[in-house]
Amino acid sequence: MSRVDLTLYLVTDSDLCPPEKMPEVVDKAIRGGVTLVQLREKTASSREFYQRALAIKEVTSDHHVPLIINDRLDIALAVDADGLHIGQEDLPASVARRILGPDKLLGVSASTVEEAVAAARDGADHLGVGALFPTDTKEVDHLVDASTIRRIRQQSGLPLVGIGGIKANNMGVLRGSLADGVAVVSAIMCAYDPESAARQLVEAYRKAGVNDEI
Amino acid sequence: MSRVDLTLYLVTDSDLCPPEKMPEVVDKAIRGGVTLVQLREKTASSREFYQRALAIKEVTSDHHVPLIINDRLDIALAVDADGLHIGQEDLPASVARRILGPDKLLGVSASTVEEAVAAARDGADHLGVGALFPTDTKEVDHLVDASTIRRIRQQSGLPLVGIGGIKANNMGVLRGSLADGVAVVSAIMCAYDPESAARQLVEAYRKAGVNDEI
Repeated sequence: MSRVDLTLYLVTDSDLCPPEKMPEVVDKAIRGGVTLVQLREKTASSREFYQRALAIKEVTSDHHVPLIINDRLDIALAVDADGLHIGQEDLPASVARRILGPDKLLGVSASTVEEAVAAARDGADHLGVGALFPTDTKEVDHLVDASTIRRIRQQSGLPLVGIGGIKANNMGVLRGSLADGVAVVSAIMCAYDPESAARQLVEAYRKAGVNDEI
Repeated sequence: MSRVDLTLYLVTDSDLCPPEKMPEVVDKAIRGGVTLVQLREKTASSREFYQRALAIKEVTSDHHVPLIINDRLDIALAVDADGLHIGQEDLPASVARRILGPDKLLGVSASTVEEAVAAARDGADHLGVGALFPTDTKEVDHLVDASTIRRIRQQSGLPLVGIGGIKANNMGVLRGSLADGVAVVSAIMCAYDPESAARQLVEAYRKAGVNDEI
């Protein structure tokens, strides 16, 4: 059982959406069904990241949706975000958990059972597992399929979202995966209507049969 | 009165020295007279920064010399460094001080009296003031001279180091500045013999007449 609703996890990308538009896009996306927001900034200065996080936090707080900060534990602390998401190139999960304390959310990117089991041991609450498809927004090491996700879910015991190139029209890839939700970047960031895009993604996720036998 | 000896402050640069050689260079530099070390990593992943900080901390701890982390408060916390150094594009000093607590060192880059006074108000212990000369290692907004440093020192009440292109043979620029020390990057990072370079820098600093009347 997850401490948060992972159904539709929005990961931001300021290459796809200018920072000054981001709060509006996030607001609309939440109205459409986004249940969790991760702010990811790969080129911003610390000051910019901090200021953008404050602006997004106003939106997520209004909607009582958790805000997770990507990579930067200091930014998470500085804005009192609900949690941190780290990849395999970020701080070790055990170190992040120690500094965050037990109450904050800690998500970890994993693409193998080994990484997932290590993350569970080191204090992660939930996982982002991918990539499901090749994407432009992040370099992809290797692709995962529904049966891999299912094994990761079962062997780590952690709730997880599938990530990487997921759209409403390819959500069937999660069939049988036992994924607790789906994380998207461009499917919402690049949408003309983020609210409607989010609504379609939730609907597609519900219909994907993630709990079906493989 | 500074909480640390600012006489010769080494700021690292992995563009000038490969990370695997850095601990050895820092060790030699401390033997030559470096009193404070700042680890600055502008392109490393968080994991790399963390690992490099752990490696440098072994060296600084052996010599009982404080280790300061540039920009990344999370890395400073993760390795339990002695402090953090932030610039005007990093986290606000007040936020950094709140998270660091009262016991850690907090240095702030300032190039005007206004920035220096704000840093003092926001919890800085000491300042890096520059640039004294144009450099290749950092983009320079504007240059400061000894009389500006003197005013910053007097009006902020904070101990400070001059930084930016300082070498043993141009240390005279600090004459009358009241600087508590000098920070260098390439003068040590690029030196064939970091120990001897540090020794010459300390000697030049002692002879520069920083407390002379202007």
